[in-house]
Amino acid sequence: MIKEQLINQIKTIIPENRILSDLSDRYSYSFDASFGEYLPDIVIQPKNVKEVAALVKLANEYKTPVYPRGAATSLSGGSLAVKGGMTLDMSQFEKKLIIDRENLLAITSPSVITGEIHKKAEEVDLFYPPDPSSSHVSTIGGNLLENSSGPKGLKYGTTKEYVIGLEVVTPTGEIIRTGGQTVKNVTGYDLTRLIVGSEGTLGIVTEAILRLIPKPLARKTLLASFSRLNDSGHAITKILSSGILPSAMELMDNACIRAVENYHPSGLPTDAEAIVIIEVDGHPSSIEEEMTKCAEICREQGATNVKVAQTEAERNDIWKARKMVSPAITQMGPTKISEDATVPRSKIPLMVEKLQHIRKKYDLNLVVFGHAGDGNLHPNIITDKRNLEEMKRVESAVSEIFEAAIELGGTLSGEHGIGTLKAPYMEMELGKEGLLMMQKIKEAWDPNNILNPGKIFPQPGQTKVVLT
Amino acid sequence: MIKEQLINQIKTIIPENRILSDLSDRYSYSFDASFGEYLPDIVIQPKNVKEVAALVKLANEYKTPVYPRGAATSLSGGSLAVKGGMTLDMSQFEKKLIIDRENLLAITSPSVITGEIHKKAEEVDLFYPPDPSSSHVSTIGGNLLENSSGPKGLKYGTTKEYVIGLEVVTPTGEIIRTGGQTVKNVTGYDLTRLIVGSEGTLGIVTEAILRLIPKPLARKTLLASFSRLNDSGHAITKILSSGILPSAMELMDNACIRAVENYHPSGLPTDAEAIVIIEVDGHPSSIEEEMTKCAEICREQGATNVKVAQTEAERNDIWKARKMVSPAITQMGPTKISEDATVPRSKIPLMVEKLQHIRKKYDLNLVVFGHAGDGNLHPNIITDKRNLEEMKRVESAVSEIFEAAIELGGTLSGEHGIGTLKAPYMEMELGKEGLLMMQKIKEAWDPNNILNPGKIFPQPGQTKVVLT
Repeated sequence: MIKEQLINQIKTIIPENRILSDLSDRYSYSFDASFGEYLPDIVIQPKNVKEVAALVKLANEYKTPVYPRGAATSLSGGSLAVKGGMTLDMSQFEKKLIIDRENLLAITSPSVITGEIHKKAEEVDLFYPPDPSSSHVSTIGGNLLENSSGPKGLKYGTTKEYVIGLEVVTPTGEIIRTGGQTVKNVTGYDLTRLIVGSEGTLGIVTEAILRLIPKPLARKTLLASFSRLNDSGHAITKILSSGILPSAMELMDNACIRAVENYHPSGLPTDAEAIVIIEVDGHPSSIEEEMTKCAEICREQGATNVKVAQTEAERNDIWKARKMVSPAITQMGPTKISEDATVPRSKIPLMVEKLQHIRKKYDLNLVVFGHAGDGNLHPNIITDKRNLEEMKRVESAVSEIFEAAIELGGTLSGEHGIGTLKAPYMEMELGKEGLLMMQKIKEAWDPNNILNPGKIFPQPGQTKVVLT
Repeated sequence: MIKEQLINQIKTIIPENRILSDLSDRYSYSFDASFGEYLPDIVIQPKNVKEVAALVKLANEYKTPVYPRGAATSLSGGSLAVKGGMTLDMSQFEKKLIIDRENLLAITSPSVITGEIHKKAEEVDLFYPPDPSSSHVSTIGGNLLENSSGPKGLKYGTTKEYVIGLEVVTPTGEIIRTGGQTVKNVTGYDLTRLIVGSEGTLGIVTEAILRLIPKPLARKTLLASFSRLNDSGHAITKILSSGILPSAMELMDNACIRAVENYHPSGLPTDAEAIVIIEVDGHPSSIEEEMTKCAEICREQGATNVKVAQTEAERNDIWKARKMVSPAITQMGPTKISEDATVPRSKIPLMVEKLQHIRKKYDLNLVVFGHAGDGNLHPNIITDKRNLEEMKRVESAVSEIFEAAIELGGTLSGEHGIGTLKAPYMEMELGKEGLLMMQKIKEAWDPNNILNPGKIFPQPGQTKVVLT
């Protein structure tokens, strides 16, 4: 429990209407889009960098954990207060969003919704490519700390590739600036990219400078169905080695297709082993040619049906199938475990095969979809956390998914983060020394282990990933 | 001086023909492309990661500095053995270069010349964009540790944007792997990007996994002359905000134009205040349209002459002017001080004005050229380090260049690195706390200060940047 004295000190920094300590208030901050539940001792809504810095300094004095939290859409438990303490609700931070058209930059506060940045940039013909599926509700602060990305990683890279400067409150409560307003900057170590993706364990972002690019002039989209999964893998590889770099290449396996069709019938081929959505963007005449070639390659590689959208309405129809995945599987059961094991692109067919084997072996409701172009798959297990017998099978299946990804030269997490759920597997991927180098940074920067403790690094003796 | 006992131990790791201890041998390792000279105590040519790790472990035991060195083209003293000790000549490391076409990757040893990666990738229609001017001689290992970039930073980003995995020997001699073969990877902290650009102070790269992209199908180039520098700045900004992202936008000021024309007369307009070279690449039909628009905007903004290359030979002629800059100014005097202060793009005209003022104020031979599209200018001072009176003026001028860049929201170094020369200015840009966060990482990883000591961080009491 938090000390009375600490609460009184917090009140000297933050007005009482922005301090939440009732159980009902705290309860609404106890979960995120993953499936853990942890009650913070107190929730505070800071509005500016000075308040955040003062709170972190205070937390160091009292050795109280601090959990920064945006819109809480994390799929890895990024914002969960696993050790109690203070939750900082950063979504209430003063909103600022400046689009600097001349320098192709956006300067933003952490509380701005990512979709708002997309909108404001596009209004002046600029483009912020990172687009996690939650971008209409998630805040840029959360996107930065988790390095969220979405379907455009293949062509445009991840969030990290667009962050060139930060204002950050360090784990000891100092305010620093990293990077700046220039794309090229080699003045000392790249603290910007160290903090982006650090899951809130190395700093709290209070301002970010994002790089924008000119908005692509046009885009074209196709949907291809394959009766054999392997064929879809070959089509993807062929397209990429033909000199085309699509802005998105999305894959859905048969279980996923059936889940969507069951949720909202829209004529998807439920007998197909896989469907692939491919989008290209750029100059109208070049994408016309590229799309024709993509369709050709899909057919050559055995696609049973290829549909190129001719109108914006047809394009929306194609994407609707993909966007329906999340609601469709959410509706299939009370607990959804969403993984993001990522493999080298050429290993996608092998990885999907392994996932199908895992589904059968553990008799689980496992659907697979994801960003095939960059090797980032999303195996989702739909289950019920109250069913302990099934959860044990889920536990084993999740372990095997991680092992399969690493065996194929891939990684535990492509875009969701490690959080609470994947920490025990860190050493398997990084080795003892690799993990130690990360721990050394954390210890040097956060000697009191104040910022987001319980994340990324395995707890002593921790072996379970799902059952806690 | 190095201990006899240490030398004997080195001989148990490395055969004698790869250990150089004669003065004449060591002398040839005492300089790089900057202007300092420091004699290493011993030079060793490791061939594999185990040898490097064993040497670094030994160095920790004896508290002897280790200086990794590639082709020594550093303009900031990156490889200089400023505190003696061992120089590791990484250019003799076993060469490996695998182009993985299916996964759009290159796997390379540190000793491979960057130009070789360009060539091998382009042979299979792939493309590795980073292209520092030294790429025909510099090694990828050096490029990685300095995060070198060159003219393509605007459209394609810097070296960092293309490195997704590393094998590294840590400052205590452990072998770790960071990142991997996937573009998306959020498993723990981004050690890859922390090490890239760390100037050899945080690790020695022994293998790198680089991301390649499809090779652009075509390119077009123009040269525009401006009688007013300000007009060229407006043209650059207008082009970028019109939705065009050129692959290069190079600027040369009047002093630079005259230096080139004096060195090798080729009809450059010696009365122009600035010339700008613009290149676009991509699909043939889109770049045709883009080039027409670029030429139009240059004319609208007051260009006195615009020449679009119609053939590859004409393109080469345009680039020859730019490539002549370095030999032209090298020939102007015995000492060349090459800076790379970088400012937000819109501040380029202001920065060039400030540089012209500095030139007059200190009566120096200062020429300005650089990558205008990404704000990365190269003010070069041609001087003679034996002329102490002039060197004092150079010292003051360099200080003012740094101050001007930071005042305009820019950075000390866009692509050359801090090295020995810019260390005293680190705090001016980063603040005390920002610099301290970098120091904490260095201390946590390298408790004996073994790797490349004397770089990046200012020495106690160090204030001079040119005079040592």
